[in-house]
Amino acid sequence: MSVEQDESQFGITPVENSLEGSISKSYDLLLDSSLKVCGEIELKVCHCLIANPGATLDSEKRIYSHPQALGQCQGFIKHLKCELIPTYDTAGSVKFIKEKMINDGAAIASPRAAEIYKMNSITCGIEDNPNNFTRFFVLAKEDAPPSGNDKTSVVFAVKHKPGALFKFMEQLAIHKVNMTKLESRPTRQKPWDYNFYLDFEGHRQDLAVREALKHLEDHVIFIKVLGSYPKAKLKTKE
Amino acid sequence: MSVEQDESQFGITPVENSLEGSISKSYDLLLDSSLKVCGEIELKVCHCLIANPGATLDSEKRIYSHPQALGQCQGFIKHLKCELIPTYDTAGSVKFIKEKMINDGAAIASPRAAEIYKMNSITCGIEDNPNNFTRFFVLAKEDAPPSGNDKTSVVFAVKHKPGALFKFMEQLAIHKVNMTKLESRPTRQKPWDYNFYLDFEGHRQDLAVREALKHLEDHVIFIKVLGSYPKAKLKTKE
Repeated sequence: MSVEQDESQFGITPVENSLEGSISKSYDLLLDSSLKVCGEIELKVCHCLIANPGATLDSEKRIYSHPQALGQCQGFIKHLKCELIPTYDTAGSVKFIKEKMINDGAAIASPRAAEIYKMNSITCGIEDNPNNFTRFFVLAKEDAPPSGNDKTSVVFAVKHKPGALFKFMEQLAIHKVNMTKLESRPTRQKPWDYNFYLDFEGHRQDLAVREALKHLEDHVIFIKVLGSYPKAKLKTKE
Repeated sequence: MSVEQDESQFGITPVENSLEGSISKSYDLLLDSSLKVCGEIELKVCHCLIANPGATLDSEKRIYSHPQALGQCQGFIKHLKCELIPTYDTAGSVKFIKEKMINDGAAIASPRAAEIYKMNSITCGIEDNPNNFTRFFVLAKEDAPPSGNDKTSVVFAVKHKPGALFKFMEQLAIHKVNMTKLESRPTRQKPWDYNFYLDFEGHRQDLAVREALKHLEDHVIFIKVLGSYPKAKLKTKE
């Protein structure tokens, strides 16, 4: 990304949605990148039905959006007699119906996408579940200095012997390091071989975290610290 | 599903792909279902480029498939000058190009989809990574009796206190129960609240597993045994 090429200072990537789970592609890319996580942001997801000016709810015959957004608005969609057209991204579907001047179709995307493309939001807040948040990582060449209220993200693979993951977690417990998330991801090299993505409270420069990380090395094939960063404060507007 | 309504004896659902990870929708449905996992099957994924009879590689202008299948054949696709059309499922895209009699477009799907719809496989094995397997659960009203080489799948949520997941795993280690997979999934009720899906070796009727499960109950809000079943033998043909 442009941060790696010194064109930007910060990058941002979605890593997790509170309904759908982790965004695996982001995690796969983080594993291979030299960039560090220097922040996290949590945003409430708000879906709108967006159309060309003049179009109304009654004139829609087709709805364009990413399958995940279509899935998150099923309650709203089922009352309309519309064909659903899956697309690669939500904002892109707004661009598509604008450029193709589609007047009998609408897109599902964020209010911001309607603003950017100067399109009409017919109705907003059409998502089924209000507990719909997306978590983003802010990426830079270095992670963040200690703030006193931090989190650290690491990726690791445990040695192939029984109890290896337990021994790893035991070190965290001994050093009173509190895990906030643990998730396995296929390595893509060998079927059913996993890397683990772990978030815990504390900064990698904190004494307890440093001690834990030192002892963890005995139980892993590799461990990579993705970065330490201040905990997110929830933002409700996109 | 039809097993719940006594129309079928067994059902089958994909739960995990060795490249993409878990299929979250299947796990969400398992949590709420009364069905038990009575078997697992592992199949090698083989993608083919499928078209109406008479079409050749040179005549293709568009490729239809599920975004995941399109993503898994990027190496093959990039040599073609084709527009990519995302669809809801792979076999459905074969049906679509057949029914619409599309002669300048092809679908990416399994060899079996070509057979079913009597369509032409232009070329097979177009997936980028040969380590591409999908794991399925076989579902029935009851799980399987002990076979001597079993696995058990459970879903649980740990109590909200530091080290709770560690205490859970400690019980498995004490009873020498070997974990084969551990993954968190959002609960969809409260943001960043997770259930854990765990697979381990052994049958729920085995003494060690029974003892471990008994002690695990102290550390969880709930635990549901999805079922015990004989370990899969890898099948390489779809």
